Amino acid sequence: MPILYHSPQSRSETVAALARMLSDQIEIREVTVSRQDGTGAPDPANPHPEKKVPFLTDGAESVRERGAIITYLTDLYPEADLAPLPGEAGRGAYLSWLTYYHAVMEPIIIFDWAELSHPILHATFRDRQTMIDRLCEGLEPGPWLLGERFSAADMLCASPFHWFPEATPDVPAIRDWVARTTERMG
Amino acid sequence: MPILYHSPQSRSETVAALARMLSDQIEIREVTVSRQDGTGAPDPANPHPEKKVPFLTDGAESVRERGAIITYLTDLYPEADLAPLPGEAGRGAYLSWLTYYHAVMEPIIIFDWAELSHPILHATFRDRQTMIDRLCEGLEPGPWLLGERFSAADMLCASPFHWFPEATPDVPAIRDWVARTTERMG
Repeated sequence: MPILYHSPQSRSETVAALARMLSDQIEIREVTVSRQDGTGAPDPANPHPEKKVPFLTDGAESVRERGAIITYLTDLYPEADLAPLPGEAGRGAYLSWLTYYHAVMEPIIIFDWAELSHPILHATFRDRQTMIDRLCEGLEPGPWLLGERFSAADMLCASPFHWFPEATPDVPAIRDWVARTTERMG
Repeated sequence: MPILYHSPQSRSETVAALARMLSDQIEIREVTVSRQDGTGAPDPANPHPEKKVPFLTDGAESVRERGAIITYLTDLYPEADLAPLPGEAGRGAYLSWLTYYHAVMEPIIIFDWAELSHPILHATFRDRQTMIDRLCEGLEPGPWLLGERFSAADMLCASPFHWFPEATPDVPAIRDWVARTTERMG
């Protein structure tokens, strides 16, 4: 049985919400983590090598990074219909958005937060406006990143704006999609 | 038929090498890109929204980001045996390493190159030594990141050290794995 290591009010919230939507067969085990405000502490019960969350174990398998855990779990529970499977229409877009989140969105949001800019960062990751343009294109025609089909890619890509509303681009197509995603997740 | 948009001596090299190993049914279409040394130019024939490479189209599907393209292609050509499929042993580690590459390795390598450090970067991505520790653990017992099984995750995670040997950690387990991976890719 899969075990998801999770800490409330952390980056694992989206994956914990997905786990609850996928199956009641996934155990969600709460652990503590060191918080950026100095509270919390690494939890010896957390098998993540850096004591971060989320982390998933499933028998002999262990999985780290949200996009990887999401892909692993949606493939494991296809009946929940939260992602296209390999060979299904939209699989390419699904994998692209999950990876784009890690490869581009999170770095750009972090650089903005830290007020960092550098030509090498721009050449590799581009910038906030480019990210906004890609999201808006992806949401055209909408209502979801995969068109008519809601998926866990919406959950991951909307998550930073759900948690940090002040970071949400002031663009109706994006604001509405974040609100729609929050509502769809119940 | 899948079409891979590729530019020699760029980040798409690893995916182009994988495509050649997977199937002769993948068309590799060369395009130009803007290079960091000022040469090259965006290619109107490249469907990537930012004119970057690699980019994959497959009928109505389009796929961006190396880890996503790699997952998509290895699932499409399982007979090449370059990755565990969903449900197979090692799938969790496979997805984890592909995502770890984008989520952690590439940012850390880029920050080192740009000589950037910041507490927020460290809290999110950790640092070069942590990355080295994770790779060394992953290669224990080896010889590959998935143990006895060579996979496209070795190709992606070893790729920055193949292209920038001077960035390769001076750790025998990593240096030997990079050399082994280059040799295995033929």
